[in-house]
Parts: sequence; C-alpha cells; structure tokens
Amino acid sequence: MKKSIILLLFIFFFSQVHSQEKMEPPWMWSIDKIKSTANQISAGKNLNPEKWPNGARAAVSLSFDVDIETPRLHQGIGNISQGEYGARVGLKRIIDLVDMHRIPVTFFIPAVSLILHPEMVDIIKKSGLHEIGNHSWIHEQGLSVPDKDEKELIIRANKYLEKITGERPVGYRSASWNLRKSTINVIQELDFLYDSSLMADDRPYEILVDGKSTGIVEIPPDWILDDYPLLYVSGTRYSSPREVLNVYIDEFDKAYEEGTTFILSMHPEIIGHRSRIVILEKLIDHIKTKGNVWFATCRQIAEYVKNKD
Amino acid sequence: MKKSIILLLFIFFFSQVHSQEKMEPPWMWSIDKIKSTANQISAGKNLNPEKWPNGARAAVSLSFDVDIETPRLHQGIGNISQGEYGARVGLKRIIDLVDMHRIPVTFFIPAVSLILHPEMVDIIKKSGLHEIGNHSWIHEQGLSVPDKDEKELIIRANKYLEKITGERPVGYRSASWNLRKSTINVIQELDFLYDSSLMADDRPYEILVDGKSTGIVEIPPDWILDDYPLLYVSGTRYSSPREVLNVYIDEFDKAYEEGTTFILSMHPEIIGHRSRIVILEKLIDHIKTKGNVWFATCRQIAEYVKNKD
Amino acid sequence: MKKSIILLLFIFFFSQVHSQEKMEPPWMWSIDKIKSTANQISAGKNLNPEKWPNGARAAVSLSFDVDIETPRLHQGIGNISQGEYGARVGLKRIIDLVDMHRIPVTFFIPAVSLILHPEMVDIIKKSGLHEIGNHSWIHEQGLSVPDKDEKELIIRANKYLEKITGERPVGYRSASWNLRKSTINVIQELDFLYDSSLMADDRPYEILVDGKSTGIVEIPPDWILDDYPLLYVSGTRYSSPREVLNVYIDEFDKAYEEGTTFILSMHPEIIGHRSRIVILEKLIDHIKTKGNVWFATCRQIAEYVKNKD
Amino acid sequence: MKKSIILLLFIFFFSQVHSQEKMEPPWMWSIDKIKSTANQISAGKNLNPEKWPNGARAAVSLSFDVDIETPRLHQGIGNISQGEYGARVGLKRIIDLVDMHRIPVTFFIPAVSLILHPEMVDIIKKSGLHEIGNHSWIHEQGLSVPDKDEKELIIRANKYLEKITGERPVGYRSASWNLRKSTINVIQELDFLYDSSLMADDRPYEILVDGKSTGIVEIPPDWILDDYPLLYVSGTRYSSPREVLNVYIDEFDKAYEEGTTFILSMHPEIIGHRSRIVILEKLIDHIKTKGNVWFATCRQIAEYVKNKD
Repeated sequence: MKKSIILLLFIFFFSQVHSQEKMEPPWMWSIDKIKSTANQISAGKNLNPEKWPNGARAAVSLSFDVDIETPRLHQGIGNISQGEYGARVGLKRIIDLVDMHRIPVTFFIPAVSLILHPEMVDIIKKSGLHEIGNHSWIHEQGLSVPDKDEKELIIRANKYLEKITGERPVGYRSASWNLRKSTINVIQELDFLYDSSLMADDRPYEILVDGKSTGIVEIPPDWILDDYPLLYVSGTRYSSPREVLNVYIDEFDKAYEEGTTFILSMHPEIIGHRSRIVILEKLIDHIKTKGNVWFATCRQIAEYVKNKD
Repeated sequence: MKKSIILLLFIFFFSQVHSQEKMEPPWMWSIDKIKSTANQISAGKNLNPEKWPNGARAAVSLSFDVDIETPRLHQGIGNISQGEYGARVGLKRIIDLVDMHRIPVTFFIPAVSLILHPEMVDIIKKSGLHEIGNHSWIHEQGLSVPDKDEKELIIRANKYLEKITGERPVGYRSASWNLRKSTINVIQELDFLYDSSLMADDRPYEILVDGKSTGIVEIPPDWILDDYPLLYVSGTRYSSPREVLNVYIDEFDKAYEEGTTFILSMHPEIIGHRSRIVILEKLIDHIKTKGNVWFATCRQIAEYVKNKD
Repeated sequence: MKKSIILLLFIFFFSQVHSQEKMEPPWMWSIDKIKSTANQISAGKNLNPEKWPNGARAAVSLSFDVDIETPRLHQGIGNISQGEYGARVGLKRIIDLVDMHRIPVTFFIPAVSLILHPEMVDIIKKSGLHEIGNHSWIHEQGLSVPDKDEKELIIRANKYLEKITGERPVGYRSASWNLRKSTINVIQELDFLYDSSLMADDRPYEILVDGKSTGIVEIPPDWILDDYPLLYVSGTRYSSPREVLNVYIDEFDKAYEEGTTFILSMHPEIIGHRSRIVILEKLIDHIKTKGNVWFATCRQIAEYVKNKD
Repeated sequence: MKKSIILLLFIFFFSQVHSQEKMEPPWMWSIDKIKSTANQISAGKNLNPEKWPNGARAAVSLSFDVDIETPRLHQGIGNISQGEYGARVGLKRIIDLVDMHRIPVTFFIPAVSLILHPEMVDIIKKSGLHEIGNHSWIHEQGLSVPDKDEKELIIRANKYLEKITGERPVGYRSASWNLRKSTINVIQELDFLYDSSLMADDRPYEILVDGKSTGIVEIPPDWILDDYPLLYVSGTRYSSPREVLNVYIDEFDKAYEEGTTFILSMHPEIIGHRSRIVILEKLIDHIKTKGNVWFATCRQIAEYVKNKD
C-alpha cells in the first residue's frame, strides 16, 4: 500500500504546485512583473543601415533549417522517412538552384543531421558560398531542455559543426525558434555574432536582455516567412504553394520598397519537394527581375549591419 | 495519509459537481430556461439610419485592437516577440497609411499595451483624428475574470487610458469579444456610449439585457471581418491575405449596396505585416474608388446613430 | 473514507468497462460482426428517375438548417450572438433571394429556433413555396440522446412545427447528420416520407436497416455541400467563399451531366452573411444559365422519386 | 478495498513505466541509439532507371486505396455512409475514367472492403488492366497491431484477395502508411515484390532494414500526393480541389523534367466525388497533353526497375 500512498501524495503536491502557478492570473500581476516578463528579451536598436552594399535596394537572405530526421525520431517510421527525403532529395534540389544562381545562403543545421547524413557537408560546401549555422544538437527546443544542459548542448553542436566543416558557427537559430533568456546569455558567452529566432521586426536589431544591450544582432525570421506552418501537409493548417509564393512576393516587394531585409526560412524536407521548389525558382526569378538586390548569408548581413552601426 | 484522503474527497466532490452540471442537457430545459439563456444579451432596435452624413452610401469604420504582448505574456519569448512586432513595426505602418488618407480610425487598447509601449500614444494622436477605446486591462477575457474583479479592471483600464490620453474612453470592446451579462451591466453603469463585441447584425443596434433596453449602442464586429482567425499563421486555420481581401471587398460591397456599416477589426501584429498591409492599402483604394462613403471612428458612428434614433 | 473508496471502485469498474470495449479491436471481429456493423444502415435501391419533371436535366434542392442559437446555448454570449445573426439578418437575405427567383427551398428547423424567433414563420411562409422539415427539438444529436428520449423529442418537435406552421413535417434531417439505427426506426414509425442525413450517394435512395427495406427515401446531403465545415471562420478548417462556390459549381455541373440531384445544405448564420450570400447569388445565376433544371424542395423530390419507383 | 489498491498499484506502475520512457529525451541518446533509430528502415539504392519503356519521359502510377467503410466502423452511421459512397459511387466514376483512357492503375484494398462489397471485384477486373495490392485486413495500422498478430493479418488479407481475385498480391501498402521494422520483415518473408508506404524519395528505391538490403522495392507515395489530408472536408486542414490539382500538376511536371515517377494515392470516397473527379480528369488531360509518359501499375514499375537494376 505504501506505493499507492506515495502516488497519491505525488498527485496531491503536483496539483498544489499546479494550482499555485495558476493562482496569479495576469490581471493580478504588478506593473513590474508585467514589464519584466515582457522585457526578458526585447528588441533594441534598429540596425537597418541607410545603404546596403553596392547601392542595393534590399538585402535578401534565403536560409534553410536542415532538420530532416532530428525532430521526428520519436514519430514512427513514416515520419522519419519524410525527414530523410530532405537529406536524400530536397537538399540537392536547393543546392542545384542556389548554386546555379550563385546565391549565397545559410544552412542552420542540428549537428545530428550531419551525423546521420555526413554526405551533406560536401554538397553544401561545393560552391564555397554558403554559411552553416548552429541549429541545436538534435533539434531540442529551448524550453524543454533543463537549465544545466542548455549550454552544453549548444557547445556540443558547435564542436561537431566545427570539426566537420572546419569553421566555428557564428550564427544561432534555436529549434522551432523556441528559446529563453538563458539561451541569449549562452550565445553571448560563446561569442556568437547573431541570433535568428526572434520576430519583433522585419529589420535587423540588437537584442536586449532585461532591457540591457547584448551586442547580439538579431536577423529576424517570421512564421509568415517559413515554409513549415502552411506547407506541411500533415500540419494544423495549410495554404497551397502558389498562394504562399504570392505572400513571399508581397513581403519581398515591401522590403524592397522600404530598403530593408527579406529573410526566408525553409526546410529541405518541405521546400525541397517538386511542387515547392517551383515556388522558390519563381521567387528567385521575381527578385532578380526587380534587380539591385543584395543576396547574402545571414552572417554577411549581421556583419554588415554591425559594422555600419 | 490524511492528505491523500483530502485529495480523494476533493476529486469525489468535484466529480459530483461536474456530473450534476452535465445532468441537464438542453433537451431537458424548460422553455423559460431556453429563452432566458438565449436572451441574456440580445439585439434590440436596429439603429441603422435612413441616411449617413453628407449623403454617404455607407459608413466604414476601420478598428485596430492593439493587443501586442498582452495576450502572450504566458506564451514564451518567441510569441512575445511576435506581439512586440505590432508596437515596433505594425502600428507605424497602419498610422502611415490611415493618416496619409486622413481616415479616422479607432484603436481599442488594453491599458497594459500602453504601459509597455507608451511611445504609441503620440504616434496615434499625431493626426488628431483617431479614437482610443477601452479593450480591457491586460486582455483578460470576460469569462475567466472573477465577478468581483470585472468592474474594477474595466475602471482601472479606463483610468489609465484617461491619464495617458487625456480622454475617457466611451467605447468598450471586450478581449476576444468574450463577455457576459455583467459586463454589459458594468459598462452601462460606467456610462459607456457603445460596445463593440457582439455579432447579431451588420448594422448598429441597441443591446438588450434580459430583453430590456440598455441604451448601449452595439457597433457589431464579426470574426469574418477580423484579421486574426484566418491570418495568424500559427493558428488553427488559414486563408491567404489576398483571399481575405476578396472577402472584405464582398462584405463592403454589400454594405454599400444596403446602405449599412462596414466594421473591420484588425491587429497591428497581424495586419501590420508587409504582406497584409498591402491588402489594407488595396481595400482602402477599393472603398475610395466606390466613393461616397463615410469613414468614421466607432464613436462617431455610435453618436450619429444614437442621435438619429 | 467511504466516499473515496466508492470513487475508487467507480474508477476501477469504469476502467474495466472501458478496457473491455477496447479489448476487441476491429481485426478481431468476426465477419458477421463486421457486416452487421457496416450494414446497420445502408443504401438500398437507387431512386434516381430516368427523367425529371418537364424534361429537366437535373433536380436542385437548396436547403437551410435554421440552427441559429440552438447549438450555441452552452457556448457563451458571443457565440449566441453569432447564431442570432441568422434569425435577424441571414434568413431575410436568403428569403429575399429565393423568393425573388421563385425557387422553392426546404428549411430544416429545430423547434426551439421557432420558439426563440416566432417571427421567422411568416417570413418563410410568405411566398407559399417553401417546405419546413423536422431538424430535432433543440439540435440534440442522435448519439448523445438517451434511447428513451429519442422518439419523444422527435414527436415534440413535430408537434410544435405542426402547431406553428399548420403542417406536419414529412422530412427529417438529424442535427449534425448524427443518427443511429433507432432514429430510422422512429421516423419510419412516425410515417416520415424521407430523411436527409446520410451520405452514401449523390442520388436519392431507399434506406435499408439491417439490410431490410424501410420505404424511407434518403435525400442525401454531404459535408462537401454544406456551408459549415469550410466557411465557419472559428472552425477547424477554412476555404474562402469564392473557392467554395467553385466546388458547388463543379458538383452541380456533374449532377447536370449525369442527370441526378444537387442537394445543398446551408445555414442562415453562415451563408446569410454578406460575403457568402454573394456566392449563393452567383450559384443560382450559374444554374439558371445552364437552364432546364428542376428547382424543388426536398419533399417534392422525395415524392417524385418515390412515385416513379 | 482490495480492488482499489490493485488499481492504484496499476496506475503507479504505469506512471513509472511512462515516466521512464520519457526519462531519456533525444539529447541524452548515444550516437548509436540515434543512428539505429533513424536507420531502422531507410532508403537504399536509387532504382530510377536511365530510361523508361518505349522512351517514355516519366512513369505515372495512379493508385487508389479502397478503404471505404473499413476505417470508419467505429465512427458512427454518418461516417460509415461516407465510406459507403466510395463503393457505391466513387469507384465507378474512377473506373469509367481510367478504363476510357485505357490507363492501368493499382487498387490497394483492405480485404474487408471486398467482403463488404464483393461487387467491386468485377468492376475493377473488367478491363483486365488493373492491379490489386494488399492494403491490410481491415485498415489496421501497423503500430497498433500487436506483434503476434501482424503477420497473420497480412496473410489473412493475402489469402482473401487471392481467393477472390485469383492472384496473390505482390504489392503492400500499409494502412495510413503506418508501419514498423517488423512489417518490412514480414513482407520480405512473404515474398512481396514491393512496398508503397515510405516517403524518402520521389524515385523508386530499395528498402534497407537496419542498413541492410531487403530486395524490396519502394514505390514511394507522399502525403502531398494523397487526396485525404487536404480534401477530406471534415479533416484538420483543407485545400480546394482546384488548388490541389495545381500541386499535382507541378509535381508531375518536375517528374517529367527529371525523368522519374509520379505516384498518386487517392481514395474512391474522396476523389470519387463529383467536384474531385473533375480534377482527376483534368490531371489526366494535362499528362496526356505533355505526351510520352508511361502509365503503369505500381507492380509494373516495381518489376521494371528491379529488372533494370
């Protein structure tokens, strides 16, 4: 009977903790608590420069999160095969397209993706144009990792990427853009140049932690400019690729008009499919037709705006 | 062992209460109970006037719920940054557009949004055209707030808005249009002119509580005419902005044909994005091309229909 | 301590019952059990006639489920007001449109809808063209009503409709098309002519219960031809009205080509909105342009196919 | 009191087991565990041939999963009738279309579908062109079937299909593409030629189990090329049929450009509806207009690529 009592006590205390957390709804919060919650991480100085290199009207960075199997290891064989598609088929289509156009792009890669598919390194490096950024060890999300493991995992991923690619990453994109204050502290300690996980602006900005300068540049993504939420056919919601293309074009056109940045986040296992690579082809054609645009890696943009600052 | 027994008793009584509530499904209800439930709050007199000012064919009110971080404080850093976008980027795009067109609009603002971003006040007030309405203290929803706190929170928000803007709000829009009978009682006691949370008509009407006149004008919104349900990319369902624009145009065209009102509810953190502000631009162009329309704040419409009545 | 033991025993027996039900997954079922489950209710004789009246190429029945507040009484004020819209605004737009075109249509109405809005009766009856069918007492769904109450509720609804409209309904459409074997038995006992809740064909057919003739005509609806699943903005999924119109047109065009029926199910609180009534206008225009179509109530179709049989 | 204690102990141990499984999140896994999880089943040799028969530019296989009532037996009368539609109406529309074009296609059929609708056999066999593949006994999904039953169910389905159709199936498609390592082992033991459930490529490939050759050819489907996720109106997400057609066309056009395969998976109860058969008609027209394509069953493709290998 002892065990059952232990269980009951466990349930009881758990329910206490749980209800305590709920005991203070936001309308009971002090102004200080509201402010400190909202400002754990916030957007500081706008780093969008007056001018882009060579008089370009806007900066465009195509980025690819090479998650492939890593977020799917718990999800059964079928889902794993969907991830494998990214490594086996999708990545090559992307590389063929951007290398043909000589467009430098950024690949944010969980280290484990390269462990599972080391052949991807040569494919990516062939042109010498592209950047590889840190995208966690195994797609672990900031909020689910215990405090004590967070830093170690980012370092572990960094070491692996450096060993394989010969370069230490200078950019960090958290898995699912899921991070917390300590994440920014860690990437600051580890001398990252920039993060690419926060959505407070269309333009590069400096990240503040508790209202204080961090020196970290944010190259802001947005779910509107990500292929997953709307094109993952087994997801919650959907939009057809051609409709998504229209949104990307509208976003780019305004960036062009305003002289800012267009940061697109994609996945080889999503955009790499035949009916989607078509929209990336068409988007690149649209951007090139407008002309006078700086295609750059996230790193190149971060360095440029930091130096101009 | 005592605590476990307390827990068990708690579960037991809870399950009793719960099952009791379920014990009377609607087909067991008396006609009286059915009627009183349906008619807690209902639509009274149609207040749509014979004519709009200066012979306009229809009245158009663009309204913006400046929720920004307030509904997201519990949702992690990424979501908070999505809200911050509204204050930092979205609001300015909106103001630039409506001020250029000299269109008066209404901003419904949770007081906490202004506490977090006091710089928004001047941006909104610059033109002298726009109205600020009460949109709760911190985006608390009517149904989750305890009875005893409801009135106090609406007053607290009112006071803050009056202090900052110099004017007491006369319009109330409940957070998520989630309200109850007592909410209408409260805003009646507090001498609000109008509410904008109920969806029983396209035309302004008088709100009834338990079938009785309240004198409160309803300026009715609708989820069809709100940018959140279909354009929030991380939501349940989605429609592309250009498709949403077509719906807005069809709604407006009928309002124009019928001589009624077109009340659009938007959010800086949604419509303020580049690929969405485009549809607001196009909508305004469409409305202006039709011509002979009265662009007005919700307050101006409420006052006009109340005086005509 | 007794109560806790009672609770535990309750949980225990409940879990037993529950697991027992789960104990036999479908692959353990006998062929007999499979067949009897699949054939509780099934589609019998195809009743589509060789010819429609006056040589029409197809039969078209526009039907409207006047649910308005009835499924929303438990869902809070906002949702109730969305239902009220159907009675206050949507129904009139529908009647104006179909009466102008002199198109007879069928309204399936939960009796409680008429209790809450008795003014709807005259609006519907004005033209003398339309049918009123039984759509439950208060939108109770077949599967949730206890056996003993099912028949009584259908009778209660029938009596109320007959009292108000002067005619006993001959058609039954279950709320949410949610019914069971006993429902068919009940409507057979009560001498209904037809049901309109089952989706096994595009053409009218005879309903079988346990493989045996019932004499009941099925006028089959389908979720594809219902405005709720795709146009309810707060629902799970969405399609824009104009896209939905294209689907209706494709469905009608094939019905026309095949010489069968086009049965459309709508709701005043959905299709009655401005941006949706537009698609009903355009659909009617499309059908009329094709020409040579029999617009009829569900009852007229059921009577015609039964007599031809 | 004994029973309640048994229950509590059960809950306790269950919670232990459950928490243990959760105790090791992926970032704690060894490289070996990561690799062995990712590589339980993986894609081996690319089997896409240099040339297709008669110099065709691409191979096209239209396949139909005849699930009809089988996944719906637990879901109530309405859903069962939606499945019945596939047998009663949808299948015939499909056969009429593909037989008119003399296009050989593959039907993957749960044996129970034929038990419930034996009349489908003659309809399918009339032209002598089509293949029937194994699609489980009663749409049981790989992951929910106990180990000990998996093989027996596949054999049971095989025997039934052979008895009815006169031919032993050589192709296997798991229900919902839900399978596990043991499934591949079983179909290997049973001498299947190919599987069609995995999504790691657009091109046929050899399946590896734990990195080792199996000799089984994978004819890869994909949710992008399946009519269920986007066209089931009561599902989670939706896209209009015409939009879905555009995606199919884009997928085919790239397959044509790349000289690979276009494998489409559909369901009589989905694509067989009037507004959807239209898109299949249009797709076939599009493919035929391009010309020089090999329409083949999955079996013909699997045999061809295996022999070429």
